[in-house]
Amino acid sequence: MADTEKNAAVAPAEHDNQTRSRLLCAAVDVFDRKGYAAASVREIVELAGVAKPALYYHFGSKEALLTAVLEEAARAFARKMDAAMTRKGTARERLSALCTDLHDLFQEHVPVARVAHSVFFGPLEGMPKFDFTVFDRQSERVVRQIVEDGQAAGEISATASPSDIALMMMGIIGVFTMRQLHYGVAKVDLATLQRLVGLLFDGARG
Amino acid sequence: MADTEKNAAVAPAEHDNQTRSRLLCAAVDVFDRKGYAAASVREIVELAGVAKPALYYHFGSKEALLTAVLEEAARAFARKMDAAMTRKGTARERLSALCTDLHDLFQEHVPVARVAHSVFFGPLEGMPKFDFTVFDRQSERVVRQIVEDGQAAGEISATASPSDIALMMMGIIGVFTMRQLHYGVAKVDLATLQRLVGLLFDGARG
Repeated sequence: MADTEKNAAVAPAEHDNQTRSRLLCAAVDVFDRKGYAAASVREIVELAGVAKPALYYHFGSKEALLTAVLEEAARAFARKMDAAMTRKGTARERLSALCTDLHDLFQEHVPVARVAHSVFFGPLEGMPKFDFTVFDRQSERVVRQIVEDGQAAGEISATASPSDIALMMMGIIGVFTMRQLHYGVAKVDLATLQRLVGLLFDGARG
Repeated sequence: MADTEKNAAVAPAEHDNQTRSRLLCAAVDVFDRKGYAAASVREIVELAGVAKPALYYHFGSKEALLTAVLEEAARAFARKMDAAMTRKGTARERLSALCTDLHDLFQEHVPVARVAHSVFFGPLEGMPKFDFTVFDRQSERVVRQIVEDGQAAGEISATASPSDIALMMMGIIGVFTMRQLHYGVAKVDLATLQRLVGLLFDGARG
């Protein structure tokens, strides 16, 4: 589309996409600052610069807006996991690359990740219809596959449990995420994350 | 105090302690179900079976009640950490025992831990005056000490970084906690926790 055309008039479908995306951004911002329960539809539509009916047209409810935010986060996470699944290299290289990918994804989307954690750990009443186990299941599936490839290549002990290694990787990613999302605690940087993957391979005994 | 005396009349100081403790229990229950922001003082005092002024007399505000819940949790955590600091044994045994202690502590206090996580990951607005870094700082201090003792005994590689191992331990405890607190995900049991400590020592390479 030429710039002049873009400025002159926006096609209805594109206008719809822009409205949807503005509502999602505004929702993340308000959910993050106020918390989901205290966030008001009025504040979200004002921040998005759209009329209230547009929110109901696109999402139906505040809960559906939250679900859409979480589903978008799950899709972004799944893309990183798919990349990790098919990436070439040793198991150590692939797990390091996965850490880098998740590090970058979280850094780019701290408010979304904070909203997701806040809801995940939040009260059961008002919990949206969203299956949070998708993140764990995808992580486990991908790490298991990488570990099994590493075992087939003789890089990882044949007696090591792929699901235990998957839990350790989730622990490494979890400690990074926890430090990233809260305001007052020291961050875990990418170099440290990579050293932790090395420690998982080599062990503390050395 | 004899049973008859206890039933006949409760000394004022003891009555105060009972009221305080009933309010704390009720607050945890309501914060856990409703979330801190949506929890009402009225619901807490009704559940505790005390009059509203008793809450203000003992705590001053809903926020101070939350802070008292978190401080009590921090004290229970600190007692486990102190025990880990002075416990005898190899580094592996001491880290395993620390995992067992924290496993038991969380299992006994799932609602308190869920409230703490919900607030930790919750919105900055309305965050109580409570220093959440106390958990991380204590974990780091204790695990570092155990690792340094293990290095002095030749049990842990002299080139291993105590603070990296502390992060791994926090990751292991974190993945257990995360699975424990959420309703829908598979739990990590004590045997698995212990295997993860073993994996941290031996490494995936075997």
